[in-house]
Order: sequence, then C-alpha cells, then structure tokens
Amino acid sequence: MSQATQSDSNKSTKITIVGGGLVGSLAALHLGKRGYEVHLYEYRDDIRKSQLVAGRSINLALSARGRRALTEVGLEDVLLDHGIPMRGRMLHDIKGRTTFVPYDRNTNQCIYSVGRKHLNEILLTATENYPNVHLHFNHKLMTAKLKHGELNFVNPNTRETFQVNTDLVIGCDGAYSAIRKHMLQHHGFDYSQTYIEHGYIELCIPSNNNEFAMPPNYLHIWPRGKFMMIALPNQDKTWTVTLFMPFKNFEKLKSSQDILLFFEEHFADAVPLIGERRLIEDFAKTKPQHLVSVKCHPYHIDAKVLLMGDAAHAMVPFFGQGMNAGFEDCTLLSQILDKYGDDFKAALSEFSETRWENAHTICDLAMYNYIEMRDLVTRLSFRIRKSVDDFLFWIMPTKWMPLYNSVSFSHMPYKKCLENRKWQDNILNRTIATLTGTLIATLVYGCFVYIKNSSII
Amino acid sequence: MSQATQSDSNKSTKITIVGGGLVGSLAALHLGKRGYEVHLYEYRDDIRKSQLVAGRSINLALSARGRRALTEVGLEDVLLDHGIPMRGRMLHDIKGRTTFVPYDRNTNQCIYSVGRKHLNEILLTATENYPNVHLHFNHKLMTAKLKHGELNFVNPNTRETFQVNTDLVIGCDGAYSAIRKHMLQHHGFDYSQTYIEHGYIELCIPSNNNEFAMPPNYLHIWPRGKFMMIALPNQDKTWTVTLFMPFKNFEKLKSSQDILLFFEEHFADAVPLIGERRLIEDFAKTKPQHLVSVKCHPYHIDAKVLLMGDAAHAMVPFFGQGMNAGFEDCTLLSQILDKYGDDFKAALSEFSETRWENAHTICDLAMYNYIEMRDLVTRLSFRIRKSVDDFLFWIMPTKWMPLYNSVSFSHMPYKKCLENRKWQDNILNRTIATLTGTLIATLVYGCFVYIKNSSII
Repeated sequence: MSQATQSDSNKSTKITIVGGGLVGSLAALHLGKRGYEVHLYEYRDDIRKSQLVAGRSINLALSARGRRALTEVGLEDVLLDHGIPMRGRMLHDIKGRTTFVPYDRNTNQCIYSVGRKHLNEILLTATENYPNVHLHFNHKLMTAKLKHGELNFVNPNTRETFQVNTDLVIGCDGAYSAIRKHMLQHHGFDYSQTYIEHGYIELCIPSNNNEFAMPPNYLHIWPRGKFMMIALPNQDKTWTVTLFMPFKNFEKLKSSQDILLFFEEHFADAVPLIGERRLIEDFAKTKPQHLVSVKCHPYHIDAKVLLMGDAAHAMVPFFGQGMNAGFEDCTLLSQILDKYGDDFKAALSEFSETRWENAHTICDLAMYNYIEMRDLVTRLSFRIRKSVDDFLFWIMPTKWMPLYNSVSFSHMPYKKCLENRKWQDNILNRTIATLTGTLIATLVYGCFVYIKNSSII
Repeated sequence: MSQATQSDSNKSTKITIVGGGLVGSLAALHLGKRGYEVHLYEYRDDIRKSQLVAGRSINLALSARGRRALTEVGLEDVLLDHGIPMRGRMLHDIKGRTTFVPYDRNTNQCIYSVGRKHLNEILLTATENYPNVHLHFNHKLMTAKLKHGELNFVNPNTRETFQVNTDLVIGCDGAYSAIRKHMLQHHGFDYSQTYIEHGYIELCIPSNNNEFAMPPNYLHIWPRGKFMMIALPNQDKTWTVTLFMPFKNFEKLKSSQDILLFFEEHFADAVPLIGERRLIEDFAKTKPQHLVSVKCHPYHIDAKVLLMGDAAHAMVPFFGQGMNAGFEDCTLLSQILDKYGDDFKAALSEFSETRWENAHTICDLAMYNYIEMRDLVTRLSFRIRKSVDDFLFWIMPTKWMPLYNSVSFSHMPYKKCLENRKWQDNILNRTIATLTGTLIATLVYGCFVYIKNSSII
C-alpha cells in the first residue's frame, strides 16, 4: 500500500491498458505504483485459472533490460528464483558433438529462461498490491474511438458488451494489436509488418527421471545453415524445443517417415531425447507458425493513446529481446513520467521520439541474429571474431563491449549498441588490413634478403 | 457488344470490384471486355452526377503506361482529345525568369494533363458498352470475409445494408483501402505505409480572358530547395497549383500577411496570376494534406482477392506515375489472364510476383523525384547530366534511355528502368574518373616538358 500511494500528486488520469500479457501487466504495475487509476482489459480468461495457451512460445529469455524493469516494481528476486540461468550457447553439430560458447567469458553474466505463463501469473498477482489497479478478463476489444478515449468491449462468452471511457489508452495487445490497427488510419502513422519466409514449431524434450535430459544451464542450438533448432530449459526439467525452418521445407515433411528421416539426418542426437513417437505426434499435430517483424512510429496520438511492447515493436525471436524491449518500455515510460509528471502530451511525445529508433534497431538486430544463430556460429571466422571481442572486452571492459553483451547485459540504447559494433568492425578491418600489409612487406623483404644473401643478385 | 463477347469461354466467375475511381472503373472495363460478370461498388455517389470531390488532386499526368491501358479498351483517342500536352518542365526561378527543360529533346514525346473527374466520367460511361458490367454507387464497405467472398455494404444515405457474395474481390479502393485493411490480418502479408513530413495544398490560377495565364504546354515548377510549387493546366484554361512543403513550414503561415509575405518572397511571379485575395482565401480555408507511400506483398489471397492501383502501391505524386502504374496493373492482369484463362489462382499469384518489385521501385523513384523536382533541377550538375543523357539517348536511342524517359515514355518494367539508370551512372562515373586521370597525367606531363624545355632540369 505504501507503494500505491507513493506519489499523491494529481492522479485523476484514468489509464486503460488493453492486453493483459507480460508487458500489459508490467505496465499496470509501473503505472499503479505511480498512483494512477489503471484498468487492464484482457480478452482471454485469467491465465492464473486457465491451461497453457496454445500457439505462443512457452518460455522466454530474460536479460538485463527485463530484470531492471521487474526490479523497479520489486519483482526481481521472485523471478530469479524461478528463472533458469543460461550461461551461453551449447552448439550441437551434425554428429551430436557439443561446443560451449559462453555469452560473457569475463564476468559470467547470463540470461534466464523463464516460463511465459508463470511470469504472467506473478505479474498479475503483484497488481493486487495496488488497489488502484483493476483487472478485467474476458473483455475483447470490438471498436474504438481512440481520440475520444472510447473503447467498446464484448465478453466472448456471454456476448455482453461494455463501453469504457478513459483518458489514456495503452495498447499492450501484442504483435497483432487491435489498438494499433485503429492507429493505422491516422495520418502520419508510419507502419510496416514484414513476415519472414521461415516458420516455427515447438516440440518438447521430457524430463529424465525428474532430471534434465541435457545440461540445463545453456541455450542449446542445432545450427544447420538454412535452418536451426533450439532448446530452452523449463522449471519442470523439460525442454521446450523450437525448430525454425523455411515454410517450403516444412511442407516437404508430410509423412511420419519424412519427419523421422529429417530429424535423424539433421538432429540425430535430439531424437532419443524427444522420443520418436512423441516427435512424430507433436510434429504432425502442429502447424508451423509465422514470424513477423513490426515497426511503427510514432507510438502515440496526442495524450490519448500509446503503444508498448510487441504492439509497438514486434520482432523475430532470435535475439531474445522481444519481452526485454517491452519491459524496457515500462522503465522508459516511468523515467519520462518522472520528468514530466502528469503532462502526458509531452511525455508520450518524448516516449515516441526516444524509443522508435532503438526499437527499429533491435527489430533489425533480431533479424540478423537468426543468420548468426543458424549459420555463422559454426564458422571459424565467427569464432575468431568472438575471441578477439572477448579479449578486447577483457582488457577494455568499458570501451569494447561486444554487441551481444551490450544488448543483453547492459541498458545501452539499442541504437548505440549497433553504432558501437560498427566502429568496432571498422577498427578491426583497418587493423587486419594494416597487419596484412605489414606481413606482406615483411615477407617481401625477407625474400629479398634471402635472395641477396644467396648471392642470386 | 462485340467486345463484350470477345471471349466466350467459361465466364461464370463473378468479379466484385470495390472502388469506382480511375483504376476501379478501368479494371471493370478490362474485365468486362473479357466477358466476366463484373460488379463495381463505389461508396460515393455517381461522379457524373456530383460536384467536384474535395481533398483529391484535380488533375493528373497521363503518360505511356496509362495510355496503353486506355487504348486496350478503345479509349485513347477520347482522352487525348481532352488531355493537354506538357512537353517539359518550365522552371520558374526566384526572380520569375523561366527555363524550359524538355522531357524528350529527341522525339518530343510528352505527358498529358487530364482532369481526374473528367477521366473518371469517361471510364464509367464506357462501362455501359458492356451489359455484363454493373455499377453500384453509394455502397460503402462495412465488413468483409475475404476468404469466403462475402462483402457487406451500407448505403451511407439510407443506411440500408447489402450482402454480396462473389468469386473474386478486387480492391481498387485507393491509398487507404478498406480491402487491404482486411488483408493486413492475414499471415504472410507484408505491408508498409510511410508518410513524408511534407504536406500539400491546392490553389488555382484562373483563366485570363478565357486564355491560359501562362504558356500551357508545360508542367510549371517553382523549385525552392526544401519545398516547391507546381502547376498543371486544365481544360477550362485554369491552372491547378500545388504547393508541397514541410508541415512545420505550413504551421508558420498563420495570418493573411504571413501567407502573402511568404508567396511574395518565394513565388512572386505567381501572386498576380493567382490573385492576392483568392490566394489568401484559398490558402486559409485549406488544411495541408498528407502524402503517403504504401508498399505491400503479395497483392492476392488465393483466387479470392486482388489489390490493384493505389490500394496495392500508393506513391507520392512526384513522378506522375500513380495513375499510370494503376492503369498498367490492368494491362498486366489482362496479359496474365490471356496466359492462364480462368485459372485465377495461378493468374493472381503471377500478378503478385510479376508486379511487386516493380511497384516498390516506382514508389521509391517517386520519393526520389521530389528531391529532383524541388532542388536538383536548379543545379548545374543536374543540367550537365541531363544534356549528357539526352546526347547519348540521341546517338543510342535503344541503348541509353534516360530514367525519366523509360518511366514515362516506355513500358519497360520499373525495376529495369532503375537498373538501367544504375549502370548508366556506373559508366559515367568510370568515364569521368578516366577522363580526370588522363587530364591530370597530361597536365603533369605538360609541366614536365615545359620545365625541361625551360632548362630548369
């Protein structure tokens, strides 16, 4: 209760959050903590009462940005108790041999595998600390007059309709956001959605005598060039396995035999862990899901609407930053509200301008990281570069932070992370050119001296 | 009638076109000519009975691609009778001095200024030649189940609702397409909308004793670096004048005095032509309009939906290709239907794959051409390059077609036009480098000979 009344300035602003997923519920906590009257509308039933939701990824990688936003509402410890640390990538080659590639060789920082459902439950339950935060489940948005703060919901079960009038609408309703769809019609709203030609299916490696069937503290990757499989550990000692592959390759796997042959050829070491029967059954009953990248700008309309999380910047999952970027939105909004108080017009405008380039950058980096994960990690040139990066980071920890580390283990704006990477590339390229030049000159001189001493000249 | 029954193969396919603007009515003609049952739904009243529609550009530039598509339905002559040829750009400098820059110095090809309303009326009237084409005005799309071919319309005046069931929906409903909005929800539909930070307002130069107040056979441009004004001639001897400028500059012009001072400073020669009072009145009552560029892909869903014209590829108006590209869509669809007959599944897929890269290219070129029109045209380097292009085009008319000419006066795919420009740039850059090198070498040699002859060495 002390938190809820922390700020007692004019908090008459009524905030309506659409979407009770991870970012929606964390935003409710951040805004509830500031003392606003917050109403959160979620079209599904309360996740705390329901079974696992199909078609969404089961676990996620929590890193520094997400952790900070949780800490700000007093939740880091609770989550670290439930997260499984992953210290680096465990690469599985075609013969099943594994190689460990740490994320952070110098300070051993790691990312955490957390369950989506579990995390969502913790966040929703935490809102109970704030009597000014109200949760409304089974409310599906039907129509909206955003500029008038009017939203119309329907209960999908009873078909009962509800009208809501609010000062500010925050769309936290994910990659296929209904709030964003309404914003699309507003002049000046830039938007892009890009699907990649790869889809994914989720499989499962069960626990083995109540133990993990593989070493748990790693993100396991089977990089196969044009496609890949990954596995993240769950609290119950199972693994969530995700196969990413072009849709056209999925289409070729029609029969049980096709599936089994494909896995035996590319992921032979995983087959006994998943189990042949379960593999075939799970694969056959799942349709490959699409992966979309969404960029837009601005994220707000006047002081009336704001987009956060995937609704503002959905990304492909290959940098593990989707949730973290959404959580960081909450941190940023809090920082900006500290600066502007209740002046939402100024605050939302600054939010858009501060955030959009960083969000676009992490969307691009996530796209790039798919190539790194499925292909580059297996190359010698990549490993040499990583060793050089790790060494330079070790001797210059404040100056030379490698891209993965700045993205995952710092709060550096994403755009700055990429800029850093670019000047690092420049320096290395120039150094290589100089070294190559020096080497050639030395060799030529060496030959000359040798020939001279041999009295040929 | 002979046209309507030209193809008497199985034409049981019912086609519903949404949008009765330029592309919608031309598409109805093309498909009507092929013998399909075509229903065209337009949310406005019949333009032939109504006043000029506000908020849309009044006249347009018709060039080769548009002309071909009109010729294919027997309409070129009708239109050329009503179009006003524009042989090139007439640049107005800050002192009111004019320079003529022809579009095609060698063969004198020109573009035609045509009135949107007039052209739309001709197209709609021409559909009366096809008893299999049915026009439905005052039908506004409310909801759609695209995959089921179910559309629901409402009459905005009577509020009466209509359900339409159809085999194929063609969305020709413009840059803010309702059909496309429904496609946005389909997985795999890539989409982007980008607004530029410049807006536009339309003004008018009245006729002078029933004559044009400026030489009529040109597209007049007042290029001013960061902004520009253009004027296109109308049949009634008036000019439609369009001012393109950053929104922030529009915002600065609040009072009548601001407006007049601004025009006196930048477009002094146009002020007496527009008339001070009319200028101030028209400027004050008009809100600057937004300019949007839309790209998407694919343009179809199965054999059920297709986007054409601005609905598929809205572009900024600076290459004068918006309507022409939309009309070329009709040509392309006809060519593809010639190949596939009634196999719409194959035909629509080929339409998307053939068209999207070309459409994206012309969207980009239109964006680039704003910089050319408002700024580059005034630069010496631009004029030298244009002279070189014109000369090379003159001696190699099939090999060296400049970009503007290939876009406006040929049917070359837009992507190929841009590729041509790129290799032309390459050759010119290399030639300049070689010439510069030769010149420097000659100078150095000259100096050396001079010094030697002067017996300094």
